[in-house]
Amino acid sequence: MAFTEFRPLDEKLLREYIKATPSLSSKIGNEFDDLTIKEVGDGNLNFVYIVVGTSGSIVIKQALEYIRCIGESWPMTRERAYFEALALKEHRQLCPDHVHEVYHFDRPMSLIGMRFLEPPHIILRKGLIAGIEYPLLAEHISEYMAKTLFCTSLLYRSTMEHKRAVAEFCGNVELCNHTARVVFSDPYRVSQYNHWTSPYLDRDVEAVREDNYLKIEIAELKSKFCERAQALIHGDLHTGSVMVTLDSTQVIDPEFAFYGPMGFDIGAFLGNLILACFAQDGHANQRNDRKVFGIVLQSYKEWILRTLEETWTLFHKKFTALWDQHKGGSGEAYIPEIYNNPEIQQLVQQKFMKDLFHDTLGFGAAKMIRRIVGVAHVEDFESIKDARKRAACEQAALEFAKMLLKERRKFQAMAEVVSAIPNLHL
Amino acid sequence: MAFTEFRPLDEKLLREYIKATPSLSSKIGNEFDDLTIKEVGDGNLNFVYIVVGTSGSIVIKQALEYIRCIGESWPMTRERAYFEALALKEHRQLCPDHVHEVYHFDRPMSLIGMRFLEPPHIILRKGLIAGIEYPLLAEHISEYMAKTLFCTSLLYRSTMEHKRAVAEFCGNVELCNHTARVVFSDPYRVSQYNHWTSPYLDRDVEAVREDNYLKIEIAELKSKFCERAQALIHGDLHTGSVMVTLDSTQVIDPEFAFYGPMGFDIGAFLGNLILACFAQDGHANQRNDRKVFGIVLQSYKEWILRTLEETWTLFHKKFTALWDQHKGGSGEAYIPEIYNNPEIQQLVQQKFMKDLFHDTLGFGAAKMIRRIVGVAHVEDFESIKDARKRAACEQAALEFAKMLLKERRKFQAMAEVVSAIPNLHL
Repeated sequence: MAFTEFRPLDEKLLREYIKATPSLSSKIGNEFDDLTIKEVGDGNLNFVYIVVGTSGSIVIKQALEYIRCIGESWPMTRERAYFEALALKEHRQLCPDHVHEVYHFDRPMSLIGMRFLEPPHIILRKGLIAGIEYPLLAEHISEYMAKTLFCTSLLYRSTMEHKRAVAEFCGNVELCNHTARVVFSDPYRVSQYNHWTSPYLDRDVEAVREDNYLKIEIAELKSKFCERAQALIHGDLHTGSVMVTLDSTQVIDPEFAFYGPMGFDIGAFLGNLILACFAQDGHANQRNDRKVFGIVLQSYKEWILRTLEETWTLFHKKFTALWDQHKGGSGEAYIPEIYNNPEIQQLVQQKFMKDLFHDTLGFGAAKMIRRIVGVAHVEDFESIKDARKRAACEQAALEFAKMLLKERRKFQAMAEVVSAIPNLHL
Repeated sequence: MAFTEFRPLDEKLLREYIKATPSLSSKIGNEFDDLTIKEVGDGNLNFVYIVVGTSGSIVIKQALEYIRCIGESWPMTRERAYFEALALKEHRQLCPDHVHEVYHFDRPMSLIGMRFLEPPHIILRKGLIAGIEYPLLAEHISEYMAKTLFCTSLLYRSTMEHKRAVAEFCGNVELCNHTARVVFSDPYRVSQYNHWTSPYLDRDVEAVREDNYLKIEIAELKSKFCERAQALIHGDLHTGSVMVTLDSTQVIDPEFAFYGPMGFDIGAFLGNLILACFAQDGHANQRNDRKVFGIVLQSYKEWILRTLEETWTLFHKKFTALWDQHKGGSGEAYIPEIYNNPEIQQLVQQKFMKDLFHDTLGFGAAKMIRRIVGVAHVEDFESIKDARKRAACEQAALEFAKMLLKERRKFQAMAEVVSAIPNLHL
């Protein structure tokens, strides 16, 4: 059975689809009687099925014509599945340890068949809320970011390859447009989709809309996001787009991928770690034994902050190591005949990494702000039941993010950023 | 007669081609016996024919598979003709007073049939060498730059329109690649195509290659050129790409067009004006009556410098006027609900124009440098017969350009740049 045009799948159709698709049926042992199918799409956009067979499991993801969490009132092209599959393949080639395999892609059906990330893999955000330490997280995610960002930039690629790839991903404009709106616009204006912990944050939300300096800075970042084709970025690299176990880190869901500024990915990840950190104080209070849990949670906050700092430090190390390793290659940004002595090599790297650091802080802060006053919030805060406590955490995070966005150029190292994160006393 | 595949035209074939093409033959009165055809391509890249008929004239431009002035050793896609035609149509729609009409485009033949810019139109560069003042030049060229750059940017366009256009022009990558090489790379390394007034400039050429700070700055500009899709730029807007009379200014030859940084166009034009200015002192000396011509040429230099300053001032005025006029439109860079009070509107405009000013100075300086030590020189200097005098002018221009590239952020207004241009005493 073949689908020649788009049909949203239900369980029955899915079963038929898999049966008719060797690249999928072979993964589950070609037995169809005992398949169990479970819809698990808890994300904002798509339908996701886990299909468990006798000798293996797969994941089937299908994009619909709108944003699932909002409904048909917010349409969104199904073509995002094409760009997700493309980015997964490209990123997996560059970083197979942290990007899962795509078994099958069907463009008319907007359907991707892919590896099932078996238990105990969970969404990193849930792990952070549960207070689990992931000792290899910084190592892994920095590896993913360094490899995917470096190798899709002009540091590694020729202008010809780069422009061809940029043109292809320009096709993912609807998703870029969506990001531009929810990250760089809606939080700074009145929008029907915005929400926040009211009434506690009412005044703060207004203050965001009235902060001229903040709005100048967000315009600069928006222009970078819309105009600067620096590397093939994931485009939505928050802690909900990463699945983890204690020894595995897998990046998922790159449907927002396009050629954009590197700092947007790094910032998304680090900004969401900072949000997790601010949320800890709210979680502490939710439990009764303030003292014991207070100590536990304090030490967990420290782990998050250590991970934040290590992620940047390791990223910096790996990224510049790739640069050194490939400096005689086909990358055209810094031609070796021109950047031909150790002094200038060091100078250009320092300048590049400093600019990237400031971009990272700016985008990270922007991602924090939008998760507090925009359309899509984070479970880290949402799971704090007491609205007053939640608001206190969010307010502190918002203040910090505003400061970071405006003052980012004053920071020289991630340790300084970590030191600037306040301890809340709720 | 129709050509189904590419054939380089000669006079005989061209005659047949026009006869078979109503959009062209109608322009020359549908008479073919008395046609006169003259090949006038004095540029670096293409064949250009002026075809004069009984009741009208046209220009036929055909691109070949290589760069004409270098030969078959430097291949260059014929597809540039497609992007030239596309840019001409787009820019003419935005600024019909200063962009000529395209009558006919034939993609397989890489052939454009267009308006003949009748005498006394001459190439601006030749007018500058001849010492002719063009009282409307600043007014006209600033109009062209303001309209084409503003209306193809996110200040005027939606993200959707913008990305679609960016993707299309990514196809012109070979031409971008060529520019990247000759402007941002070759002058800063040993290259077989580089040449300069030797032996006088030997040491200066070496100094360019050894100037770490200069090379850091050129890398930043190169990255903007390769990554930042800000507007549909002409891509080669020097004084040889503009035809003028005392009351007409027509921009020609946008085959290098793509979505790049606005400052690259403005800088190209202004940088070439500055080169013309430095060349004047060499021309002064070529004539015997130093005193009389000295005064004449001094006053001509002053006109060039006035034009330089006025071009920027008028561009600034027209560009921000367009911005004010369209601020409620579909442009998505600064959404009116966010940039919603006069103070912030002024702040964002000031910041935008300051950044654009510094980009303009940087790119302008880069274009000056490459015309002195790179592959393609300018007639302004080349027409100075005395090599020692020519070298003195070039050396002064090169020093100024290096300073401008490195110190551009210290300048606040074009008047300061003009004041910094030295008077040579040869």
